[in-house]
Amino acid sequence: MLWRKFGNVRKIKFCHWCGGPAKHEIPDGEEKIRAICTLCGKIAYQNPKMVVGCLIEHDRKILLCKRNIEPSLGLWTLPAGYLEIGESAAEGAIRETWEEAGAEVEVISPFAQLDIPLIGQTYVIFLAKLKKPQFSPGPESSECCLFEVDDIPFDSLAFSSIFVTLNLYIEDVKSGKVKFHYGTINKRLGTGPSDIRAFTLDYHLQV
Amino acid sequence: MLWRKFGNVRKIKFCHWCGGPAKHEIPDGEEKIRAICTLCGKIAYQNPKMVVGCLIEHDRKILLCKRNIEPSLGLWTLPAGYLEIGESAAEGAIRETWEEAGAEVEVISPFAQLDIPLIGQTYVIFLAKLKKPQFSPGPESSECCLFEVDDIPFDSLAFSSIFVTLNLYIEDVKSGKVKFHYGTINKRLGTGPSDIRAFTLDYHLQV
Repeated sequence: MLWRKFGNVRKIKFCHWCGGPAKHEIPDGEEKIRAICTLCGKIAYQNPKMVVGCLIEHDRKILLCKRNIEPSLGLWTLPAGYLEIGESAAEGAIRETWEEAGAEVEVISPFAQLDIPLIGQTYVIFLAKLKKPQFSPGPESSECCLFEVDDIPFDSLAFSSIFVTLNLYIEDVKSGKVKFHYGTINKRLGTGPSDIRAFTLDYHLQV
Repeated sequence: MLWRKFGNVRKIKFCHWCGGPAKHEIPDGEEKIRAICTLCGKIAYQNPKMVVGCLIEHDRKILLCKRNIEPSLGLWTLPAGYLEIGESAAEGAIRETWEEAGAEVEVISPFAQLDIPLIGQTYVIFLAKLKKPQFSPGPESSECCLFEVDDIPFDSLAFSSIFVTLNLYIEDVKSGKVKFHYGTINKRLGTGPSDIRAFTLDYHLQV
């Protein structure tokens, strides 16, 4: 699959730093095609991004947000978003929860790292609790609700990563021990991003 | 501290996609200064990078590599490097171990996630074991050795992240239970990158 092999390196046509045109070649001593500036020689590396978020437990319920933006408009998710430079993953998860759910939370424990190699994303999800029992949807959410575990809208979830996270959490709650999970979400070939159950969870390790 | 607030966004002077000159402003609906293309309007987001690596146990010893490149030339580290698009963190850690230590490993368990907000890096370290008892330095290493826990060269380690990882591991081994650790490494202000003990480990959570 070309995308896995090259990422989207060919979309980089110019150098960020000097504006020179980019060529797409394997640099000396490396193994992958990179965008290399034909003027200044700098290489534009591209790397996966971390999505950080919170799984908030309150009165044996879980806080979910209904998305008010694409992708997956109108579907339910955990408050989560891209980690920014200058913040830790826990700080980013707390910030995203404030932005999307208007909730002030305290992070309790790391819960899951889920890699999605196909799209160059890694989800880092923390267990968290509300500092105050208030929350209200931010601009990116149309609604925020606490759901009993048995009422989680599994048929209206936004992303495979959220589907996996909530399933692992429910299994842990039922087993009486909440663990830390590492795993890789590999989408099944030929399926679209909206088909959130079309994946395998590989390399699942738990502590 | 400006760097924490803005990252190095001002170094982005041109658009990757169309080559147009960038301006540095807060986009509508956002809160941070970004590089925005003055021609096509696209925003160049910058995000932290993941460094993935292995803590390899063999015969109650740990595999370390002496760096053959800058930074920290001549100092000892775990095999680790930047995660690439298209691979999972575990796959990346296995690849880096092969490249830097010539060792084929199997990942056993996630061991640590250590964020370093100041430099926009997150270390993800896995416990691993050798599939075969062979290893030999790759181009980025001058030497690879197995060290007894008591012989780890703590005065000649390459990075704060490696210092923290090895200390957490030794504590866990002594306590009889190896856990998963999450934490933030905050360098002390005014100290250089080579002063690897000048940090605090904040927000340390363990599972």
